[in-house]
Amino acid sequence: MLRPNMNYRELKDSYLFYNIAKKTREYTDAHPGIHIYRMGIGDVSLPLASSVIDALHRGVDDQAKKDSFRGYMPECGADFLKETIKGHYGRRGVDILNDEIFISSGASDELGNILDLFDRSSSALVIEPAYPAYVDASIMAGRRIIHLPAGDWNGFLPLPSKDTEGDLIYICSPNNPTGAVYSRDMLKKWVDFANSRGSVILFDAAYEAFIEDEDVPHSIFEIEGAETCAIEICSLSKTAGFTGTRLGYTVIPRSLIREGMCFNDMWVRNRTTKTNGVSYIIQRGGAAVFTEEGIKEIGEAIKYYKENARILMRALDDARVWYCGGKNAPYIWLRCPGDMGSWEFFNLLLHRIQVVGTPGVGFGAAGEGYFRLSSFGSREDTKEAAERMRELLVSL
Amino acid sequence: MLRPNMNYRELKDSYLFYNIAKKTREYTDAHPGIHIYRMGIGDVSLPLASSVIDALHRGVDDQAKKDSFRGYMPECGADFLKETIKGHYGRRGVDILNDEIFISSGASDELGNILDLFDRSSSALVIEPAYPAYVDASIMAGRRIIHLPAGDWNGFLPLPSKDTEGDLIYICSPNNPTGAVYSRDMLKKWVDFANSRGSVILFDAAYEAFIEDEDVPHSIFEIEGAETCAIEICSLSKTAGFTGTRLGYTVIPRSLIREGMCFNDMWVRNRTTKTNGVSYIIQRGGAAVFTEEGIKEIGEAIKYYKENARILMRALDDARVWYCGGKNAPYIWLRCPGDMGSWEFFNLLLHRIQVVGTPGVGFGAAGEGYFRLSSFGSREDTKEAAERMRELLVSL
Repeated sequence: MLRPNMNYRELKDSYLFYNIAKKTREYTDAHPGIHIYRMGIGDVSLPLASSVIDALHRGVDDQAKKDSFRGYMPECGADFLKETIKGHYGRRGVDILNDEIFISSGASDELGNILDLFDRSSSALVIEPAYPAYVDASIMAGRRIIHLPAGDWNGFLPLPSKDTEGDLIYICSPNNPTGAVYSRDMLKKWVDFANSRGSVILFDAAYEAFIEDEDVPHSIFEIEGAETCAIEICSLSKTAGFTGTRLGYTVIPRSLIREGMCFNDMWVRNRTTKTNGVSYIIQRGGAAVFTEEGIKEIGEAIKYYKENARILMRALDDARVWYCGGKNAPYIWLRCPGDMGSWEFFNLLLHRIQVVGTPGVGFGAAGEGYFRLSSFGSREDTKEAAERMRELLVSL
Repeated sequence: MLRPNMNYRELKDSYLFYNIAKKTREYTDAHPGIHIYRMGIGDVSLPLASSVIDALHRGVDDQAKKDSFRGYMPECGADFLKETIKGHYGRRGVDILNDEIFISSGASDELGNILDLFDRSSSALVIEPAYPAYVDASIMAGRRIIHLPAGDWNGFLPLPSKDTEGDLIYICSPNNPTGAVYSRDMLKKWVDFANSRGSVILFDAAYEAFIEDEDVPHSIFEIEGAETCAIEICSLSKTAGFTGTRLGYTVIPRSLIREGMCFNDMWVRNRTTKTNGVSYIIQRGGAAVFTEEGIKEIGEAIKYYKENARILMRALDDARVWYCGGKNAPYIWLRCPGDMGSWEFFNLLLHRIQVVGTPGVGFGAAGEGYFRLSSFGSREDTKEAAERMRELLVSL
């Protein structure tokens, strides 16, 4: 008798963004024509870099002619793209092999798919607040989830203790939603913990391009010992505005081995079975990102978002609101004033100053009383939202 | 303690295409400059239709400008593409809802991912010879596999009997590798069987565009009762030459329910957790396929491949070789002459007439003694290969 995957019954409905949209719509329906300042979105707003656009057009042209037409792509990614990613790592002093790079359709796809490499009896450690998909993907697989709550007492950067458990360890730094970043020393503690315990770290590096502090590693492979305990999952979504274009990459070191099984070999086997690779056209576009011209252009877009973050942070500083993030990350994570709950603060901002953000409790119970602001909006809206928040928060 | 997914140990190495490439290379190394007639590939050779190319360029242009830039796509697919697919079904009298269509990166990705909907205790019935990924994906999940061997005694189209088992039933029609097609009446027997048993059919319709006989359904949803027992997985790879461009779609009826769980709802939940959708640019290209101009253009490409198939079939007819497929499918599946094994025949063709095909045994034990020819090559090569085969086979 066929049985559905009953683990799906354990999933909570994901109402966060649905509820944000619903409450916003109710408000705009009651106030026709009113402008809403959207500081909640995790999506980028600037168009693709012109070097990427040119490369995409050339990729399309290749598909139009018999001599340059490309059929099935290598399942683990095209060498012309892997080479540029290898160079990107090399510039930070991290040596990886082409065979250790896997091209993906993006980090969210990869974070879901890669769990196939691990037995379902292996538990997952999730530092909360967290990107909701970490928890949901583990529930779907029937994995035991260990929640490690973070808070302002540790700057939202918990470290392992002797009681810490977890076979798979999700680490996202710079973090979504808190914008907090692990230093080299702190990350080394997680690496040593994973190696001593035989755990595997799933390192989500989606926001690495926003790092500006020297002491904050862009890749977990800058940390000694990570090559025997970590998989790094990267994305061009925030690095180069690929949220709707879809491209990412994953690094699995050849030396990551458990019970005699090499996860790199296993992932090759998985990919050759379960995909025919990523679109040639999109890979061509991606290969333009880490060229000299591409790096310059994406740097300018990131500078733009960072200036947005600074504008928001100055307003919070003026109002003496506690926050983290913003400096090495596109997100600012603030404590709601006056012991307000996340949704209470959401309603206040929407109704009083027409600013929409993301209630922290949507990222897990540890996020209650916190609120996420994003720097991905337009400059104009960000300026006005910051001014309105300053005034409101100072007056509370 | 972290445990790798030990089911990977049960996988056999997939040597089929590797061995074909190796043997071919050894031959060309020994005979420098010799031309090889490649009739083995399952990849297309004609470039994309010009209406698709135009739509792709427009999609790229949209990503270059702030006003038309598209970020995160809907996880289950863009409505502008779903509408064209709904129309494609409608023209065959199959009514489906937009919510029943899911846009994917292609059938191979989807065939792997969709297994997450089913408990691992559910067994998989594989009609063999078969696309190797059916078996491998089930091994990775630790599923029990029931092999149902097909043969020339039933035209490679087995039907369920009272002893047939299988919770998940893979059906590929037109079939890869045999090119055999189920008629409406035959498919109805599988649908009735699945409904009576509570099984779910995974219907792989990747080759539907090659069907020319009126009596052969393009979609399993042309069969009454399929809406309560089938998921249809489709691809633009062969329909429109998207093997390297990557786009597909899956239909999960709202009425497909087991143990109170609606698989359509489950797949929405899966997609919203494990993907951020398919590239906007590629979806724009895909939306051009089922327009009036697109249908005309892809029809011409298919006509070209079908003429290739006819050229190969005429040669086999002249040599009185048994085969199936070729008429409603891009593949021709022939019985090796004189009780030869698949690899023996491969070597004969390579060494005597420089034609490369695919040994049938690579698709499972039931394929031993058979051989697959593809119609996706160039006209010139196909003509010459057919002529050489005719001469050789007549002489045996």
